[in-house]
Amino acid sequence: MSKQDFTRFYAKRTRLMRASEIRELLKVVESRDVISLAGGLPDPHSFPREELAEIASYVIREYGEMALQYSATQGTRVLREALSKFMAKFMINALPDNILVTTGSQQALDIIARTLIDPGDIVVVELPTYLAAINVFKLYEPNFIGIPLDDEGMRVDILEDKLKEIYSSGKKVKLVYTVPTAQNPSGVTMSIDRRKYLLELAEKYDFLVVEDDPYSHFLFEPIPFKHLKAMDSSGRVIYISTVSKILSPGLRIGWIVANQQLVSIFERAKQSMDLHTPTLNQFIVAEALRRDIIDRHLPRIKEIYRMKKNIMLEALEEYFPENSRWTRPAGGLFIFAYLPEGIDTKAMLPKALERGVIYVPGQSFFVDGSGKNTMRLNFSYPSPEKIEEGIRRLGQVIKEELALK
Amino acid sequence: MSKQDFTRFYAKRTRLMRASEIRELLKVVESRDVISLAGGLPDPHSFPREELAEIASYVIREYGEMALQYSATQGTRVLREALSKFMAKFMINALPDNILVTTGSQQALDIIARTLIDPGDIVVVELPTYLAAINVFKLYEPNFIGIPLDDEGMRVDILEDKLKEIYSSGKKVKLVYTVPTAQNPSGVTMSIDRRKYLLELAEKYDFLVVEDDPYSHFLFEPIPFKHLKAMDSSGRVIYISTVSKILSPGLRIGWIVANQQLVSIFERAKQSMDLHTPTLNQFIVAEALRRDIIDRHLPRIKEIYRMKKNIMLEALEEYFPENSRWTRPAGGLFIFAYLPEGIDTKAMLPKALERGVIYVPGQSFFVDGSGKNTMRLNFSYPSPEKIEEGIRRLGQVIKEELALK
Repeated sequence: MSKQDFTRFYAKRTRLMRASEIRELLKVVESRDVISLAGGLPDPHSFPREELAEIASYVIREYGEMALQYSATQGTRVLREALSKFMAKFMINALPDNILVTTGSQQALDIIARTLIDPGDIVVVELPTYLAAINVFKLYEPNFIGIPLDDEGMRVDILEDKLKEIYSSGKKVKLVYTVPTAQNPSGVTMSIDRRKYLLELAEKYDFLVVEDDPYSHFLFEPIPFKHLKAMDSSGRVIYISTVSKILSPGLRIGWIVANQQLVSIFERAKQSMDLHTPTLNQFIVAEALRRDIIDRHLPRIKEIYRMKKNIMLEALEEYFPENSRWTRPAGGLFIFAYLPEGIDTKAMLPKALERGVIYVPGQSFFVDGSGKNTMRLNFSYPSPEKIEEGIRRLGQVIKEELALK
Repeated sequence: MSKQDFTRFYAKRTRLMRASEIRELLKVVESRDVISLAGGLPDPHSFPREELAEIASYVIREYGEMALQYSATQGTRVLREALSKFMAKFMINALPDNILVTTGSQQALDIIARTLIDPGDIVVVELPTYLAAINVFKLYEPNFIGIPLDDEGMRVDILEDKLKEIYSSGKKVKLVYTVPTAQNPSGVTMSIDRRKYLLELAEKYDFLVVEDDPYSHFLFEPIPFKHLKAMDSSGRVIYISTVSKILSPGLRIGWIVANQQLVSIFERAKQSMDLHTPTLNQFIVAEALRRDIIDRHLPRIKEIYRMKKNIMLEALEEYFPENSRWTRPAGGLFIFAYLPEGIDTKAMLPKALERGVIYVPGQSFFVDGSGKNTMRLNFSYPSPEKIEEGIRRLGQVIKEELALK
């Protein structure tokens, strides 16, 4: 069978799912001796390895008949109860029945998109926003509207203007996707006033809010915030989170909190996606929560990340040109940098690669195609030495690029 | 927000994903003291618990930096290499590059459907076929064509007639889905001649073949067969399998073997579905394969299942009415029973429930709505005593039902 024949089979879907050139470039790169500031991996030294090794063998020995068996699509009761208690510490009141366990928060995004987004639906996101969310939403062919951020998070006033415009043309917004706390990639946190304002608009204009919250449980700088879900009185907020950043991403345990009607829709969708999230991993996370591993473990992770973030900030100060700026994140794994106008970070990437350093060009995080002069820099994975050296190399590349202008 | 408001949001998709009445019934039932012959769970005593407990703590201690970390969407190299070696024992030559690790074989089905089935595409399945495959394919709105089975598997001659008809009307078949070995729910195995015939038709009429193979690695009766994938010279066969029946379903480790072009398409789809299958589980299965746990463990599982199957066959002989018949499966977890014409097993289910026994009405396994008088009976999960008592109760219900006719 020739290649052409196979191409015929998936022509339509391929268009939607084509790999980004950048991802392909990164693939090549990661096999070479290059400092990568492009990924989004936690520091591998941050995993509580001994505790998890002990817990894994304990749950298999004690509960093997259940832990190795098929389990309910919604998630095991013991994990949903443990998550319910865990979230209560963050003022989120979620009954076990309101929780759906997912195979990482990526699956949570896919379930939400699959059940809620029909082609042409209007989906609002921040400018910039989490790349993988854009990519999974895209599969369901929505019309994106991007709302700019400032230091207090999403410009909800601009959203209101857009809403008026949209509704006066007879259309509606289906959902607003936000990473309100220590946003990826910008590091910004939405102020409490803005959160209230957003929820008021949700009532008035009848849309759902998806609160993606991977970072708030391990902020390495204290910031004032309150979860949108904790302020949600009408069940409009769909909350998603994960243990990827606070325990281990290799376990792929995420979850959704939503009203029961939505949970039941999500559950049916998940049933055909993977039947259920691995039972063993659910037992491990439930036991880790029961033993307070996460709470005891968090201060150490926070310290590692605070230190690495500060090293990157110092290096940026030293090596980046004066007319560039960058975020000072209170959480998350990234710094987002704005270079002088005129620099195209996507076009510059091959030159950086030649110098032995890579990053993610920021444009991919903007649904409106802006952000040409921005880049996302990861500080969680590389060692302190590599962070400094990577930023030094990158500073040189940028200065040379500027000299060409 | 009222319920009506939420319903508006997902009206279209709900139609496709509505829970079957049966599944809802089973949900209620499973919380009561009822003998369930309806599920599809492996015998929990069949899990190699001690070995897996040791392996889980070993891989976290030795490889924790990797095993607890994010990993590649396609699957870890070590697992793909181990699977490649494992399959070579079954004459399937698959390079690691031709393998995509999935979160259970359910996800494999979803990936295949998502990337290959567009609305209106013609998908051929067996009559009856695996219920969960029908359900996931349905989401992508194909036109199903059902081909009857006999003792040698799919009636490929009838398929050929259908193909001629379809092609003469200017249409094409996109894919044929088959469980050729120890089929679920029928227990039938496709003969080698039929397999050759099917692959010839695939060439002639230019369609893909999906070979779903959860059972062939642990047949508890020897039967002659050769995997379709092992006979595939042109890359038309997409092979899927899982460790659910041979090691543990709670690990959710499945995989797809396909030509590289398709693997790359599947990989992109999987990326937005869950980024990757849990790394820890991949390390556990790779280590279990390396230590030959599965091969050493299989004879014991086979013995348990052969014994339970025989108990159910004896009970059927004793308690079911004379004019019913049933399969004598060489593998799998199920016996499929054909009751006298006129009995509607779906309508009879509430009566069986009253008597304290349940099964899955067979009609759900037939895409053409036939099979009203059939039922699927699970023998892997219930204890020998429950199997006998369950079949005794069921025999009574059927006899009473017949007396009413």
